[in-house]
Amino acid sequence: MSVLIRNAAIVTPAGMVQGDIYTEANTIVRIGKCRERAEHVIDGTGKMAIPGLVNAHAHVAMTLFRGCGEDLPLDRWLNERIWPLEARQTQADVVAAANLAFCEMIRGGTTSFAEMCLFDTKEMFRAAAEAGMRGIISRSFLDFGDKRRAKSQLKEIPRTLEYGGGALRPSAGAHAPYTCSEEVLVKSKELARKKGLKYQIHVSETRTEIFEVMKARGKYPYEYLDSIGLMDADSVFAHGGWLTKREILLGGRRGVNVAYCPVSSLKLATGGITQVAELDAAGANVCLGTDGCASNNSLDMFQTMKMAALLQKHHYWRADALSCRKALDFATVNGARALGFDSGALEEGKLADIVLLERGPNMHPEHDPVANVVYAAGPQNVSDVIIDGRPVMLDRELLTLDEERIFDEAERRAAGFRR
Amino acid sequence: MSVLIRNAAIVTPAGMVQGDIYTEANTIVRIGKCRERAEHVIDGTGKMAIPGLVNAHAHVAMTLFRGCGEDLPLDRWLNERIWPLEARQTQADVVAAANLAFCEMIRGGTTSFAEMCLFDTKEMFRAAAEAGMRGIISRSFLDFGDKRRAKSQLKEIPRTLEYGGGALRPSAGAHAPYTCSEEVLVKSKELARKKGLKYQIHVSETRTEIFEVMKARGKYPYEYLDSIGLMDADSVFAHGGWLTKREILLGGRRGVNVAYCPVSSLKLATGGITQVAELDAAGANVCLGTDGCASNNSLDMFQTMKMAALLQKHHYWRADALSCRKALDFATVNGARALGFDSGALEEGKLADIVLLERGPNMHPEHDPVANVVYAAGPQNVSDVIIDGRPVMLDRELLTLDEERIFDEAERRAAGFRR
Repeated sequence: MSVLIRNAAIVTPAGMVQGDIYTEANTIVRIGKCRERAEHVIDGTGKMAIPGLVNAHAHVAMTLFRGCGEDLPLDRWLNERIWPLEARQTQADVVAAANLAFCEMIRGGTTSFAEMCLFDTKEMFRAAAEAGMRGIISRSFLDFGDKRRAKSQLKEIPRTLEYGGGALRPSAGAHAPYTCSEEVLVKSKELARKKGLKYQIHVSETRTEIFEVMKARGKYPYEYLDSIGLMDADSVFAHGGWLTKREILLGGRRGVNVAYCPVSSLKLATGGITQVAELDAAGANVCLGTDGCASNNSLDMFQTMKMAALLQKHHYWRADALSCRKALDFATVNGARALGFDSGALEEGKLADIVLLERGPNMHPEHDPVANVVYAAGPQNVSDVIIDGRPVMLDRELLTLDEERIFDEAERRAAGFRR
Repeated sequence: MSVLIRNAAIVTPAGMVQGDIYTEANTIVRIGKCRERAEHVIDGTGKMAIPGLVNAHAHVAMTLFRGCGEDLPLDRWLNERIWPLEARQTQADVVAAANLAFCEMIRGGTTSFAEMCLFDTKEMFRAAAEAGMRGIISRSFLDFGDKRRAKSQLKEIPRTLEYGGGALRPSAGAHAPYTCSEEVLVKSKELARKKGLKYQIHVSETRTEIFEVMKARGKYPYEYLDSIGLMDADSVFAHGGWLTKREILLGGRRGVNVAYCPVSSLKLATGGITQVAELDAAGANVCLGTDGCASNNSLDMFQTMKMAALLQKHHYWRADALSCRKALDFATVNGARALGFDSGALEEGKLADIVLLERGPNMHPEHDPVANVVYAAGPQNVSDVIIDGRPVMLDRELLTLDEERIFDEAERRAAGFRR
């Protein structure tokens, strides 16, 4: 497949370039003046091209629970609402939820996602492949210290590491240090390492959890996970609230990927404000996620970028604590690196994940294109989306997903959970 | 003029109702089953009807400066960027900026705005009337203690209190307690009181300003303004950062309108998190604003509602600190009250400011319609907008504003400011 985008304003790492983008198979071949003929020709006149956004921490399987547990703290939200609901979920529910999420992601300019899921992931891989998404998907270990449960998961999960292909890769993972036995944490990371896969885990989401880890392990969560070999450049640590300075420096030294979820942290009133500016300066790879839309309640990565930057300014009482360029990098090239894909930037040779934005009233005037993308743009501006070289939305028309059917299915299945 | 919206999911104060809305002239006449014939018939099938959002603190005249001063603290942002730029603004620039803002507001479901402007407002009233917006507009006094300047403004401003009509009303106002002499503050409020007009002023936006007021007046800003008669239910106090408990109780007793601007406060790293849950409980009328889009950088009231609610949860470490219903009230009925209009709710007899939302992927499933509006919806969902009984957007087509011309004009004039 080949795609030619004509005459767009292209946001490259070196600045904005007016020109064309030509992609072949799944790769950006040329940026500038392109004379190639292509299967798909998209008129980019008046539009801005940005790298597809990377949602580095998501739970697409939870999309049917949007609005299910409003205004509850995390422990009650999990124990009284989300976990009982999840326990009733079927594979068909998971697929319906994922499809709904993919519609929202694509319409919001998100081309890649990192999923942590409690269920077998085969059907999710299939749905994501049909939607044309890029991503990594892990089935997370979760044993609550129960040896029988750990054993059965230890048997089941290796199979999930064989799923995927193309733009979709399996990843290993565990739910969190406070919900998993040390054996499971170590073994799941070993599995990932043996297979050369990324590893996903929630770390330091709530204050309570930090006390629990301290009590059980005598160390702060980052230090504990480092001591058992879980902290490296192939691990994606979601959240990261209430980090000590020592943990930040450690995370930096290990080059760990920190998937910060600012909107969900505020909404659940759990996570404080992660010091991503310091993590970034220390050498960690900071990326951004929405978390599940049951605690967000959207999958809007534009909002996530903006809030990530603004909350740093607020936290440090410094309007220059985090620039919009940094926030865009967190949501694109850093996210791609965390997930292990050579995408996230509009450069020749990179994987072709491209989003075109229509400059609506919110994107004029254009004194500062990157500021407009990070601080002013939103899903309303996204008109065309290409993932892995394949157009999945053209002129606001989804090409891989049947929205009407997906919405009906989501409502029908969601109603079942209200009974 | 009459409008009939058929078969929408209507968000009323009492809950969601599936039915029709019939409006005549500028008023909602009936909600439920309507058999009336109307000039405009809108098919609301599958859509949700909400009251138009009220932006209770805006500077639409600044819209040409979006992205002009990124990552700067408020004092440098004002002194080095915004004020020098504003000094070069012509009336034609102000109109171009306002028109751009109105496009963004309508596309974002905002039907009313409260404007504070440093210029003569005649042309802005004209532009707002043509766009079909509802709102109050003040030309703010600003004398920096300069008696000559105060005197000349005292001559000019009364004229601006005669502008407007219909859905647009003049209001009096002063820039802030730290930029105006006491005489000007008192006289401007007297003007407002004499004419029965609302009064707009920035109060407690930055930490510095609180120290300045303390030093000059020996009182905290709310207490100072109360002592000179500025604090009542006809005053709109924008911002409100760093309030003491005593100021909150005082604001509550006076029933003052507090226009909280969460996004701009974070972005300029100035305002902390206003304790709006406490203000609301104390009896103040809390409403929400975007502030100028030079410090936001959008005019998105959906984002503002969401952030207002989420920041309270974060601030108090309580996920139930502010509910989504409260946040929606802040942005609708409370905003309308602050501006002095009997609108902001979908009820018979209220002024007809109505927004229709298309339920995109981000608004499914619908376990909790209000949560979906506040936490998940955005400008991408807004399809139709009626202000004062008049359709200003139908099926995403603006009817009162010529976007292409407005965007061109905005870019042309903005380029002039870069030279």
